[in-house]
Amino acid sequence: MVTIKDVAADAGVSVGTVSKVLNNMYVKADNRRRVEESIHRLGYQVNTYARGLKAQQTFTAAIIVPDLINPFFALLVNYVEQVLAAVGYKLLVCNSHCNEDRELAYINMAKQNKVDGLIAVTYSNTDEYLEADMPLVSIDRHFKHQICCVSSDNEMGGRLAAQKFIDTGCKNVIYIRNGSNVEGETLKRGKAFVDTCEQGGVEATRMDFGEETTLSKQQMNKINSFLEQCVKGGSFLYDGIFTSSDVHAIVVEKQLTAMGIRVPEDVQIIGYDGLRILNVGDYPVSSIAQPVKEMAVTCVDTLIKLIEKKPVERRIILPVTFVEGGTTR
Amino acid sequence: MVTIKDVAADAGVSVGTVSKVLNNMYVKADNRRRVEESIHRLGYQVNTYARGLKAQQTFTAAIIVPDLINPFFALLVNYVEQVLAAVGYKLLVCNSHCNEDRELAYINMAKQNKVDGLIAVTYSNTDEYLEADMPLVSIDRHFKHQICCVSSDNEMGGRLAAQKFIDTGCKNVIYIRNGSNVEGETLKRGKAFVDTCEQGGVEATRMDFGEETTLSKQQMNKINSFLEQCVKGGSFLYDGIFTSSDVHAIVVEKQLTAMGIRVPEDVQIIGYDGLRILNVGDYPVSSIAQPVKEMAVTCVDTLIKLIEKKPVERRIILPVTFVEGGTTR
Repeated sequence: MVTIKDVAADAGVSVGTVSKVLNNMYVKADNRRRVEESIHRLGYQVNTYARGLKAQQTFTAAIIVPDLINPFFALLVNYVEQVLAAVGYKLLVCNSHCNEDRELAYINMAKQNKVDGLIAVTYSNTDEYLEADMPLVSIDRHFKHQICCVSSDNEMGGRLAAQKFIDTGCKNVIYIRNGSNVEGETLKRGKAFVDTCEQGGVEATRMDFGEETTLSKQQMNKINSFLEQCVKGGSFLYDGIFTSSDVHAIVVEKQLTAMGIRVPEDVQIIGYDGLRILNVGDYPVSSIAQPVKEMAVTCVDTLIKLIEKKPVERRIILPVTFVEGGTTR
Repeated sequence: MVTIKDVAADAGVSVGTVSKVLNNMYVKADNRRRVEESIHRLGYQVNTYARGLKAQQTFTAAIIVPDLINPFFALLVNYVEQVLAAVGYKLLVCNSHCNEDRELAYINMAKQNKVDGLIAVTYSNTDEYLEADMPLVSIDRHFKHQICCVSSDNEMGGRLAAQKFIDTGCKNVIYIRNGSNVEGETLKRGKAFVDTCEQGGVEATRMDFGEETTLSKQQMNKINSFLEQCVKGGSFLYDGIFTSSDVHAIVVEKQLTAMGIRVPEDVQIIGYDGLRILNVGDYPVSSIAQPVKEMAVTCVDTLIKLIEKKPVERRIILPVTFVEGGTTR
């Protein structure tokens, strides 16, 4: 049987270099190519499982997100994978569709050491399954245990949106959202928004479209019906709409336009996330931009520290900015 | 030590049911919950590696895409994961950034049985590393070996774009692309476009912006400079621009608008992929829509057949459609 030593001798490198190539860790391009050619030429096959038994490390992490249809989660996964790859880790992606069973299946993988660590955007009632010392980084969501949480500054986001409406003379505004009500950072968006509006003398309402986290066709229809009912005596009730995501804002803008309401002349809209058209074009709606790349880097950095049993910060909050996308004045 | 039998007895289910839960396969929600509670209560820990040695199957597949920033790839990965999850498979995502070393690392994982199969959008010169009987499904790309290839009908796409320009009276059109020149289905876009235009009496040019597959800032700048040079005697040289992706089309539209050229009055643009604004809004550009969900389903279906050593079709081509996005007349 061909061994790792045979490969090293054939490639003219150390056994350590061959090992790094096998673990997808950083190796000079030249050496990597030589090792791969030797592996190919000698027909070397790694015994992964035997190697796993020894190392008890898989160099694999997993990320749980609702789906990759919302471009915010796709970007998050993109950058998490990129940063993990740079430190020799592979990434399993789990689209939970906010299904508790799927979330639990991946949490169990972390417990069973099938993956070394987990980054999670979860909403289900999975608290009791977590252990305080798990290599788990939560995004936005607070758990009872001392699980690390990385988020952007949702309170600041709500304040910025409110201030924009106050500064542009809005009189009556509304916050439209749907999603989980489990304790977490994102709930602060609506609260800070309403509080800031009221302090600024602007009437502010909240409209919650249920616990479903992804925006289904039914959810969109509900939002559209609601907006139709907001016309009283020929005019629209609100002059500012803040939504819990840019995807919501697009749905709202489309419906208002269909109803003959001018955006931003009659009604202003501010979304959340700061997404751009196909990630290269303009902002399709004015928005609160989350620093998605920095969030990914911070999550991976925290996760690797947890895996290596180094000290970590338990709450990291990154700043947000207002971006102009043509739906505000 | 707690065994799988203890868990089954505690949960009041068969060992087979516990095994299914451990492999993330389908189990009635009620049984799954009971098994998970027993695992939690008894503190059962699976010995993954010992299990792997026995089964020689990981129930994990991998997908290689350039990145998840282009929403087409993000949607593809989203649906591939969804379909794989339904048959009990997990998914590793590799953003290759078209780096040959990264592509090879994942091809080697398939060879070493670290993953059961691979779906790949690759462009590098990896042909020699492939084995004819590998559980690998290629998207768009042809390999020398008898590797399965799933794609949409790129020839039809090129023809549809050309026909639209012919029908709307264009006189002088151009195809703008960048990306790999390795043999594959996507090269047919440009060829069918130019051929159809010429048959229809419309002058057609091709402009190739190099082998880089993802659209970098430099690439965008090159496209912008090129477009600036297309103004002769105060008017723009072309009245129709077909691009190799919607992302390219957005870049082109933005630059033309900045140059004071009206789209679609002066110049029409047709992109490729059929993406929508944040995946819920309108089409930001007229485009040739690829059936991304059907492509994902077909890839997974073919991959599972390959893993199970069942017969498969080696070339599957799915139809495309023209979609109106405001950049054509």
